[in-house]
Amino acid sequence: MEFKVNSKELEKLLSKIIPAVPSRTPMPVLENFLFEIKDGLLTVYATDLEISLKSSLKIVAEENLKILLPAKLLHDVIRSLKDTTIRFEILSNGKVNLNTDQGHYNLSYLDHEEFPEIPDFPNENIDSEELNEITMSGSDLRFAFEKSSFAMSKEEMRPAMMGTLFQFSEEGLRFVATDGHRLVNLLNKKIQIGVDVQYILPERAVSVLLKILDEKDVKIYLSKTHMSFQLNEYELISRLIKQKYPDYSSVIPLENEFILEVETKELHDVIKRMMLFSTSNTRRVKFNIKEDNLEISAEDLDLGASGTENINCKYTGEPLEIGFNSSYVNDVLSHLSSEKRIIFKLHSATKAVIIFPTEEKENYELMMLLMPVRLNN
Amino acid sequence: MEFKVNSKELEKLLSKIIPAVPSRTPMPVLENFLFEIKDGLLTVYATDLEISLKSSLKIVAEENLKILLPAKLLHDVIRSLKDTTIRFEILSNGKVNLNTDQGHYNLSYLDHEEFPEIPDFPNENIDSEELNEITMSGSDLRFAFEKSSFAMSKEEMRPAMMGTLFQFSEEGLRFVATDGHRLVNLLNKKIQIGVDVQYILPERAVSVLLKILDEKDVKIYLSKTHMSFQLNEYELISRLIKQKYPDYSSVIPLENEFILEVETKELHDVIKRMMLFSTSNTRRVKFNIKEDNLEISAEDLDLGASGTENINCKYTGEPLEIGFNSSYVNDVLSHLSSEKRIIFKLHSATKAVIIFPTEEKENYELMMLLMPVRLNN
Repeated sequence: MEFKVNSKELEKLLSKIIPAVPSRTPMPVLENFLFEIKDGLLTVYATDLEISLKSSLKIVAEENLKILLPAKLLHDVIRSLKDTTIRFEILSNGKVNLNTDQGHYNLSYLDHEEFPEIPDFPNENIDSEELNEITMSGSDLRFAFEKSSFAMSKEEMRPAMMGTLFQFSEEGLRFVATDGHRLVNLLNKKIQIGVDVQYILPERAVSVLLKILDEKDVKIYLSKTHMSFQLNEYELISRLIKQKYPDYSSVIPLENEFILEVETKELHDVIKRMMLFSTSNTRRVKFNIKEDNLEISAEDLDLGASGTENINCKYTGEPLEIGFNSSYVNDVLSHLSSEKRIIFKLHSATKAVIIFPTEEKENYELMMLLMPVRLNN
Repeated sequence: MEFKVNSKELEKLLSKIIPAVPSRTPMPVLENFLFEIKDGLLTVYATDLEISLKSSLKIVAEENLKILLPAKLLHDVIRSLKDTTIRFEILSNGKVNLNTDQGHYNLSYLDHEEFPEIPDFPNENIDSEELNEITMSGSDLRFAFEKSSFAMSKEEMRPAMMGTLFQFSEEGLRFVATDGHRLVNLLNKKIQIGVDVQYILPERAVSVLLKILDEKDVKIYLSKTHMSFQLNEYELISRLIKQKYPDYSSVIPLENEFILEVETKELHDVIKRMMLFSTSNTRRVKFNIKEDNLEISAEDLDLGASGTENINCKYTGEPLEIGFNSSYVNDVLSHLSSEKRIIFKLHSATKAVIIFPTEEKENYELMMLLMPVRLNN
């Protein structure tokens, strides 16, 4: 059997799907694409068992087909070709010939039966009461992930925190990510589904979506077990993390009464310099806050080096000394870099600090939280 | 004691010198800059014992000084500052304060006595008969290193081949680099010193020079033990490799009578695709050469994958099958990519092949050599 496809169209298709191919896996069969041809439609699938991606392309083929092809090698070969027609010739000996006007390439294929089942979601077996559906723009979804994904935990000890929380309520859709040291809480007020429900999307789905989202609308189906993202030209299905998300709201202090307002970029530049001096284990940077003046300092005892800078601020509250992990402060400021000025709400040297922009984006509420680190003096 | 310097001027100076600071060294003192102030001139030195770099800057200082400062930290701090005046304050307790209008940084310094002696070269103790001197443009020197440096050996077993040969003769200055598998031989006919002599410059000097050379003239002093490069604003001194360079001319075949001419880019594109299939140990790619047609193929038995392409060529000679390491062919073609067409001179499947551009650059002769790999069929 054979089929024909344009090299550049196939390259585009494979480039979209390859992010789901795991780079290291104990199951080598996952390093393949599933190629399915049905009535002239080529659909390519890839999965790492947690997420799966698929996309389709109309091609010239007279028969149907289902085979596994080595993902990385095929992708590398196809994208190294110039714009040309490729004739795929599937032989019965487990080989595929790729013929172009310039050269011939020969790959091995595997039987599709060896591939794990790709979930079909949503499907008719799902109770419609259990299934939710929203549509949001790709740019809104990208914005939410870009602001929050850095705060997801990398520690397998707390699986729920290794994902991003989607929390629906009458306020809207809240995206929450935290590793216990910092937390991001972004509310999109435009998304309303009328029920209170929450889902945890694993980190891998978030990072793959960040690679493939464009500004077009995304339809999202949500059930207790899966989430599916129907993009313009393809579909991502992810398993969900079946754990209870920790009660993050209990760590968000409501009564922090000291208000510090600074210019984001100015503070960020200072923090980047202080990171050069906060290289020991704790990576500690110290904020010494007095009316109109924020002194920031860091010290590396091993190197015998230290730095101190002062910036202007607006502060209402009692003089306060508080320490942070400089690299966490840097993360937070990097993800607030589009905001001209930001506010820190503080209470004491040991209590969580909350941070938000002075001007909220319409229909959004963005809040970040940082845990302080102990000062030893 | 104290001195003042502009942050951007100091950043420029340190950025030039830091390439000589070793990143991993059993002698931590080498991770410092030597700062020397003499009559208002700040000179900064760095060395890894094989090469040393120095550059100077006029500054405001009333006293002389010689201290060691941590290179990476100082460079990172200085380049993170905006354009400002830095007041260095050297304290007697082993500390240096850097004061700017915005912040204060405190580093530890070491006594300059701990630093190895930086060679002073050339100096009056060198017999003038032993000392040679040439001037060439920075772009000519860069061209020579860019064409040849990839072929230097990385194997410590053959120390002479871990450098680039400078060979002076009545023909001019020849740059040679080889690792035994491939060889580059570039003759610059403009450089004449009237004696036959040769020097081996170590790889590290070549790679640092590639970072810092601009198009301006370079004055080069050469002795049996050292080479010094006097650039516009700084100076690099390198020890030489005190070994005999192998007699490379004996491996260059003079009687290769089969002539293959191809378009460089066309062949290179094919080789890049064949590299996808030549992933086994030998990385072998096969050239099957017949009149007007060059068939190039590669096969990976482990992956069960292979590729074959044909390109047009001009060939005078007997039909020949010859194998190469695809990654060595790729290296050679990458370094000939500015040449539209190239010529391979061949003799048999086991004899070295020489490669050169169809059109030589004025005053230059460029030749590359590739050893074939065995074909098992």
